[in-house]
Amino acid sequence: MNDDLRGLSTPCLLLDKAKLVANIDRMRGALRNQSTRLRYHVKTAKCVEVARLVGGGALPIAVSTLEEAEQFFSSGYGDILYAVGVTPAKLDRVLALRRFGADLSVIVDNVEAARAVALASRHSGDPIPTLIEIDCDGTRAGVSSDDLPSIVAMARDIEAGARLEGVLTHCGASYGSRTHDEIRAFAAREREAAMRAAHLLRSAGFACESVSIGSTPTVLYNAGFDGVTEVRAGVFAFFDLVMAGIGVCSKQEIAISVLASVSGVQRSRDRLIIDAGWMALSRDRGTAKQPVDQGYGLVCDAEGVPYPDLIVGEANQEHGIATLRAGSAHRLPDLKLGDLVRILPNHACATAAQHGAYVVLDGGDQAIWQRFRGW
Amino acid sequence: MNDDLRGLSTPCLLLDKAKLVANIDRMRGALRNQSTRLRYHVKTAKCVEVARLVGGGALPIAVSTLEEAEQFFSSGYGDILYAVGVTPAKLDRVLALRRFGADLSVIVDNVEAARAVALASRHSGDPIPTLIEIDCDGTRAGVSSDDLPSIVAMARDIEAGARLEGVLTHCGASYGSRTHDEIRAFAAREREAAMRAAHLLRSAGFACESVSIGSTPTVLYNAGFDGVTEVRAGVFAFFDLVMAGIGVCSKQEIAISVLASVSGVQRSRDRLIIDAGWMALSRDRGTAKQPVDQGYGLVCDAEGVPYPDLIVGEANQEHGIATLRAGSAHRLPDLKLGDLVRILPNHACATAAQHGAYVVLDGGDQAIWQRFRGW
Repeated sequence: MNDDLRGLSTPCLLLDKAKLVANIDRMRGALRNQSTRLRYHVKTAKCVEVARLVGGGALPIAVSTLEEAEQFFSSGYGDILYAVGVTPAKLDRVLALRRFGADLSVIVDNVEAARAVALASRHSGDPIPTLIEIDCDGTRAGVSSDDLPSIVAMARDIEAGARLEGVLTHCGASYGSRTHDEIRAFAAREREAAMRAAHLLRSAGFACESVSIGSTPTVLYNAGFDGVTEVRAGVFAFFDLVMAGIGVCSKQEIAISVLASVSGVQRSRDRLIIDAGWMALSRDRGTAKQPVDQGYGLVCDAEGVPYPDLIVGEANQEHGIATLRAGSAHRLPDLKLGDLVRILPNHACATAAQHGAYVVLDGGDQAIWQRFRGW
Repeated sequence: MNDDLRGLSTPCLLLDKAKLVANIDRMRGALRNQSTRLRYHVKTAKCVEVARLVGGGALPIAVSTLEEAEQFFSSGYGDILYAVGVTPAKLDRVLALRRFGADLSVIVDNVEAARAVALASRHSGDPIPTLIEIDCDGTRAGVSSDDLPSIVAMARDIEAGARLEGVLTHCGASYGSRTHDEIRAFAAREREAAMRAAHLLRSAGFACESVSIGSTPTVLYNAGFDGVTEVRAGVFAFFDLVMAGIGVCSKQEIAISVLASVSGVQRSRDRLIIDAGWMALSRDRGTAKQPVDQGYGLVCDAEGVPYPDLIVGEANQEHGIATLRAGSAHRLPDLKLGDLVRILPNHACATAAQHGAYVVLDGGDQAIWQRFRGW
């Protein structure tokens, strides 16, 4: 493997195809015999080839930007949920994509947005399918599932031109779990919030076809999906150190890593300089709040096996500083100038976003898969 | 102005040309009547149009990646310093650029790299100009300016095939200053380290044409440049909140900002959701250690005037959460869905890197200037 990697210019983003396929299989297994379907969130990989492994053009997808919607639609994906609260100025692009044939839906969490979607729908003669975003953890957007007046007001405003499709929620707080039981508790809360809102809507006489929930942790460690029509997840295809830190995956299952070269050995200071700084790794410090802080990433050998306690402790733009974890009994590995290392990322979405493409390792072969960027 | 911005899709990266030009003029003023010249570091802007405002094709530049070197060379910039310690595998690309006519130099801080540069130079018959990187603050790479044996060993190894060009240092620690006097102390230390190493080399019989130092703070608040042949700086063209936090610029001088739309108003929770998350702002938290922590950026109105105490307190991938600073006596501004705001960045290099282009505001006109990415 090491020999194969020698031809690559560092830093670059590696994707281990065998691990990717195994991770996708694991998600399929988790949903087998369940009454719900997967809506694959493309925001982590932003790559058509990855989506194709998850499922063909009939695979429903969630997107975080309209750029993703446009790119995936032109690659054959038609069932698209824009899973970030829509702003009025973006509705022209939504309608254009729908005119081209995309089955694109949007989400709202306030009456102003609901009215804007209904107005744009009326103007265009195209009732945009719209979901109400429910807040289940207080971390971000959404309306409380107990807030009957707001939910009903939004439903009424949506139906005055657009089409009320259902409810959606996402338990981002599940990323702060420590145990599988905690994740399952978040999963239960996520499902209950969505089901409560769906019940309110139905009781008030509205249709609520879709009940959409999910995050990688709460789908893999779920509390049952009764009444849920779809689950959204994306990071499961790659995994990362944040997911490993909450026990959702092992470090061995992480499918992406940044390939870097040793550019300096400062043995007297017990540290190595590598040519992957925050530009290649991102500034994400998602493990900082976890029991094991992985710095800017965990340093592995060229085959991807972690060195004990060696993390990227500091990151400048194009310099990473690999140091032993404080108090480690291990020694700095015997690396020299030019040696290759792999860095496992804290947060797959953030690290992958720093790169324009994946170098896909597929047995002895390599391929390049492009990523999308921008909005 | 607000009307002009209405046509832009959010989030996007704005560049105020009048501020850019004023910042460049300020740097020119600081170097007027000095014996040193500016080597403009392109790693912040990664944009040929910005470099053209700083100076024409004769402007010496510093780069942080060989991609920058290749891009700027094909745009007419020939005098290029690759200011990150070179690894052996990158020497082929260095030599290729030189064969095409680039006057490209490299830096080394260890004998292994010095030997690799000399060996590649001998093989190609092209003595690569090479500088020895000196450590003046213990933060990153470089050899101590007191380490005569290492400096002389490197010089000897370089001269066995390559060409010893001089010495280089960078006082990254200056970013941690609190006062102009502290910056000037770092500037003095930076210059002294480089001059001491140059003296050692010359005393040992080596030529040392170039003495290259610099960072934006230590060039603008210098301690004199006697003996220094060039200063490197890049962030001065844009500035950012980190620079404002150490008193190098005012917030009004920051030339770039991220334009975002309000996507949700949570008045009961005293916060706004905007459509610029970490994907648009970066995860950089460079002001976290400063007396005033600016979160993920300072929120301004559409004209760029900061709202009192309003910062992006949390950032998800495509959601920013704007909150009042803890303990603020101010109220949340009266913004509604779809209103435009601008976010001043903590770290210009990191925020700009999240975008593929600048929307340049030039009086009433707008232009698009492309950025480079990758390695």
